[in-house]
Formats: sequence, structure tokens, C-alpha cells
Amino acid sequence: MADVAAEAHVSVKTVSRVVNREPGVRRDTELRVRAVIDRIGFMRHDGARILRQGRTQTIALVVEDLANPFYSQISAAVEREARIRQYQLITASAEGSPTRERGVLESLINRRVDGLVVVPAGERPAVDPTVAASGTPIVYVDRPVRGQATDTVISDNPGGVRSAVEHLVANGHRRIALLGDDAEFWTARQRREAFVQIHDALGLPGDAKVSMGPHTVDSLTERLATWSRERSPVTAVITGNNRVTLAALHAMRRSGVEMGLVGYDDFELADLIEPAVTVVNQDPTSMGQKAALQLIARILGDESPAQTVVMPTRLIVRESGRLPASRSLRKASS
Amino acid sequence: MADVAAEAHVSVKTVSRVVNREPGVRRDTELRVRAVIDRIGFMRHDGARILRQGRTQTIALVVEDLANPFYSQISAAVEREARIRQYQLITASAEGSPTRERGVLESLINRRVDGLVVVPAGERPAVDPTVAASGTPIVYVDRPVRGQATDTVISDNPGGVRSAVEHLVANGHRRIALLGDDAEFWTARQRREAFVQIHDALGLPGDAKVSMGPHTVDSLTERLATWSRERSPVTAVITGNNRVTLAALHAMRRSGVEMGLVGYDDFELADLIEPAVTVVNQDPTSMGQKAALQLIARILGDESPAQTVVMPTRLIVRESGRLPASRSLRKASS
Repeated sequence: MADVAAEAHVSVKTVSRVVNREPGVRRDTELRVRAVIDRIGFMRHDGARILRQGRTQTIALVVEDLANPFYSQISAAVEREARIRQYQLITASAEGSPTRERGVLESLINRRVDGLVVVPAGERPAVDPTVAASGTPIVYVDRPVRGQATDTVISDNPGGVRSAVEHLVANGHRRIALLGDDAEFWTARQRREAFVQIHDALGLPGDAKVSMGPHTVDSLTERLATWSRERSPVTAVITGNNRVTLAALHAMRRSGVEMGLVGYDDFELADLIEPAVTVVNQDPTSMGQKAALQLIARILGDESPAQTVVMPTRLIVRESGRLPASRSLRKASS
Repeated sequence: MADVAAEAHVSVKTVSRVVNREPGVRRDTELRVRAVIDRIGFMRHDGARILRQGRTQTIALVVEDLANPFYSQISAAVEREARIRQYQLITASAEGSPTRERGVLESLINRRVDGLVVVPAGERPAVDPTVAASGTPIVYVDRPVRGQATDTVISDNPGGVRSAVEHLVANGHRRIALLGDDAEFWTARQRREAFVQIHDALGLPGDAKVSMGPHTVDSLTERLATWSRERSPVTAVITGNNRVTLAALHAMRRSGVEMGLVGYDDFELADLIEPAVTVVNQDPTSMGQKAALQLIARILGDESPAQTVVMPTRLIVRESGRLPASRSLRKASS
């Protein structure tokens, strides 16, 4: 109302009278006020508000696949933090395509979101030029980008892989292999590097065995059968993420190959499968929460240097890390 | 540009010259054009666009819990359909609270989303008055609302329950019970009514046994133990949704009670649990897709009468519907 009054050179009281159709306003004044209302949009809707304040109270989240539990937990956490602080959340999926991601980001910048949380797509993600030019705050999650210092929330991949290898070694395994996800993903590459490094540091026999994705149940069935038939057979595998764990479990079931297993990412039914699946839990809820809070701090003016937060992982020990032999033993005696 | 030109009483060419800092514009004209640009927002950002067109190319989805796989699949489907058609998706969670839902809807209406897909919260949801007053198109999913004809996409709950009961009966079960979710939910009530009706229609012995939620693993452990110790023990249960299935599986594991089971909602590892879990699959992806397409048709001007689409369910037969006795038999002989 104050905006309309100023623009029409009348008092707020006069604007109020016009809006409420009260008497006591000259006809030409009323017409002038109505013209201003029509022009600048009197209703408190977004359009007028954005023009006045430059803020949309909207943040956006761009992930690969909203139906993947890892991303849906991040999404739920970001939405919750946003809602508590009166921000609305736009979610978008880039389906792993850098081209689609560019289009999505451009469209989000055009609608002037206040900030972005992005799981960057592609093999070597860099800061998006449209985002950089706009100066819109952005926090990357799960994978860092090249090119400039940016706020990033990642998981402690080397620590997670180390806990998985050490657990298997402590349970008697020596021939341990990694079933990584597609090496296109930074996380998959980082977990591979960590695996090889830890394998060698612990002095495990032979070269570190690694098979990177994409995997299918078919390809894994074959891979596991081959590994189990070698002269020094692989006795345990570590999977690269929840997708690979699922495929590996199906492949083991199908082929009857029994191997020790530590899965990356916890999943809801891990304790109901036999043997219950030991996992490295990344805590996507905390990752999403941390990213949202950091983003909102930036939106509100935090100009401290960009920071990378490395979230700890946690090994959840169930049964699948034990040697298949010891498991059979335990079963026979129960 | 045309808007700026009209407002400043100059030609579009003149506006173009001012913006591109080309010569040939009088100083006072330039100042007038710049003032108009400053006032109405020349850049093609949302604020200006909303004021001009009245459209935001945004649709919103309001669900109970973005991390629940049922909703995250709906969400992914709606996002996909929206993105293909150049709409952006705002997602929000009402966490099952009608009060929170009202706040969320009001805030979405204030920012003038073009349309809404809503899984309504509360025991007896009605059309939200703010939404109704705004005339914003809305499609309800999973649960209908009272009060007026609205576009709604629901699942065939009676058909799903019937297929579950008939499957259990065909496998020799007579004492079948329903572990429903909280009767606060319309879906839970509808499945309960369908269960009782089908139980009686098939002439199964005794009264239909029903236990409605909220359930915990503890409460279900006790409930299953009680049912299994009765003179005519319950031999099979049907769960009301994915949450209840999960709790029931844990309770069975903990108590050692063996019962036939048909779960409502499919889940990723249903085939890896022993025995593999037979489920009624609701196809949330199709429900989300259908809702999004109906909403976008409304936004684009479809004024045909409101419709309720009932999506079929599908029974996915695995192993858990068989009698515990016959399952033991099968195991012993294998």
C-alpha cells in the first residue's frame, strides 16, 4: 500500500479508501490510484514482491534421481530445513546428464532462486558459468567441482572404504575385491583410489581387484563366479553404493556364490536379509541438512571463505562381513 | 522491451539503443527509459514475467514424507513430467499435519504456482479454502477430499485387498488378519473396509481380525504372538502399507512367529528376503505421472468435469503367501 501511495502521490489512507470502495476520494484521484495498482500489481503476490525485494525465498535442489533413497533422504532433509526457515524448495533432476543440468540451472537462475544445492553431474563437473555469473549462492553435495573454491559437503569416502576393508580383514578375509560404480562418478573414483591405497598399505596379497560399473545382475553374476573360481579366490567384496549392493545381492542369490560383503550406503531392509548386510552408512540426512544450513547462511550474507565439510561415515556391523565358512559353521551349530 | 517502450513513450528501437549504450538517444530520453527499466524490472526475470503473463511455469507437490519410497517415486514421476513440459517443481512436506499443510498451501498460493498436486493430510481432508478461492488447479493423489468434485488419482484399494485375500485363501489360509496403518488415513480405512467385506463375502470363519496402527515392532511382536496362540490361530496377515510391512517383517523375525504374508506396496528387496515377500504393487510412478499430466491439462485450459482416476494394483506373487507349513516342507525336501 505504501508503494502505491508513494507512486500515486496520495496518502496510504486514500489508497485504503479506494481499495475498500469507501467514500471521500475524488474521482480523478481514485482513477490515478487504480492505474498505479494495475500497473505495479498491488496484490502481495510473488511478482510484485520479487521486484520490490529482490528475494524469492526459494532455494533449489538438483540431484540425479529423486527416487534413489540416497537422494530422497538428502531431498527430505533440505526441504525440512528450508521450510523451517520459510524457504520453499524447487527440486529438479538432471538424470546424470551435464547437458540437462545446464538447462535446469539456467532455468533456476532465470527465476532468481535465492540459492542452490547441487549434486553435480558428469565426469569432471565444474562451476556452472550461468550460476557463477549470477552470483547466486551454491552448495555442492556428494561431489566437489573444479575451477574455484566452493562450499561443498562430501562424505568421508577414504574413511568409509578403510572401515570396510579393515572389518573384512579382521574377519579373516585376505582376498577382497571392490565392485565400484561407474568410474564416471567422482565418488566411485575416490572410493576406488582409497581401496587400492588401503589394500596395499595393509599388505594384502596380490594386486587390488577392482571391477567398476555400470554393473547389472548378469554381469555381476559372471564376475563373482570368475572371482570365486580363481586359484586364490576372492572371499569378500565391497560394493560402491546402494545400487551396486542391490545388484550384488541379487547376483549372489542367483549364482549361489557365498562371499563376505560390506555394502556402501545403509538400506532399510539390510538387517532382514540373510545374512544381514554390514554397511558403510553415509548419513544423507545430515549431508542434506548441513548443505541447506550452509546455503541459507550464505543467502543471509555470510561471506566467510568457501568451506568443504567432510561428513564422517559409520560402519554398521551386521553379519555379512564374516567369512562364508564361519557363517555356515554358526548356522550348523544353532 | 515493448513494455518499457510503451511506458516511456519511446520506440522499441530507442529502448534497444539505451540498453546497448548506442549513440543517438537524447540524454533526457535515456534517463526516462532507464527510470522505467529500473521501476518495472527490465531483465527477463520471474518478477517481471509473472506480472506480464500471470504464469509462473511452476507446479507444486505436497506430500507427507519425501523420504518414504512411495512418495519419492510419486515425486520423481511428477518432476519428470513437469520438466519435460518446462515446468519447475516445488516440493513440500506437510509431515502429515493438516495445520502445516494449510500453511504450506497458503504460501504456495501466495507465490502463484500454476497448479498443485497434493496428497492431502488429516483424517477427513477437505478442499483447502485458500486454494479454492485462488482458482488454482489442483489434483489430489492417493486420498480424495470431501466437499466438491476434484481431480483425484487414487489406487484401487478394494481390488488390491481382494487380490491379497484371494491369494492367501488359494494357498490354504482361512484365518487371515489385517495389520492396517493408522485409521486416521483414508487409505487405511478403505483397505480395512474392503478387507472386512471380502472376508465376509468369502465366508471365512469367525469375524474378520483387524489391528489398525500406528504399529511398532514391539506392538506387532506382541500382536502376532497373541494371534498365533489362539485356539484357531491366525496363519496369515496382510499389511496396510510399506511402513507396516517393514515393522511386521522385523516382528516376525524377532518373535520367530511364521505366518503367511502379503505386503501392501512393493519394495526393492522384497525378493531377497526369505521367504521372498508377495506384495500388492500400487505403482506410485504411474500415479504421479497421471496426476502431473492431468494437472498440466487443467493449467492449459482443460475445463472438462473433474475426474477420479482409479489406478489398478498388481499382485506380485513371490513366496510369503504360502502356508508356513508348506514352506517348511518345501525347505526340508530341497
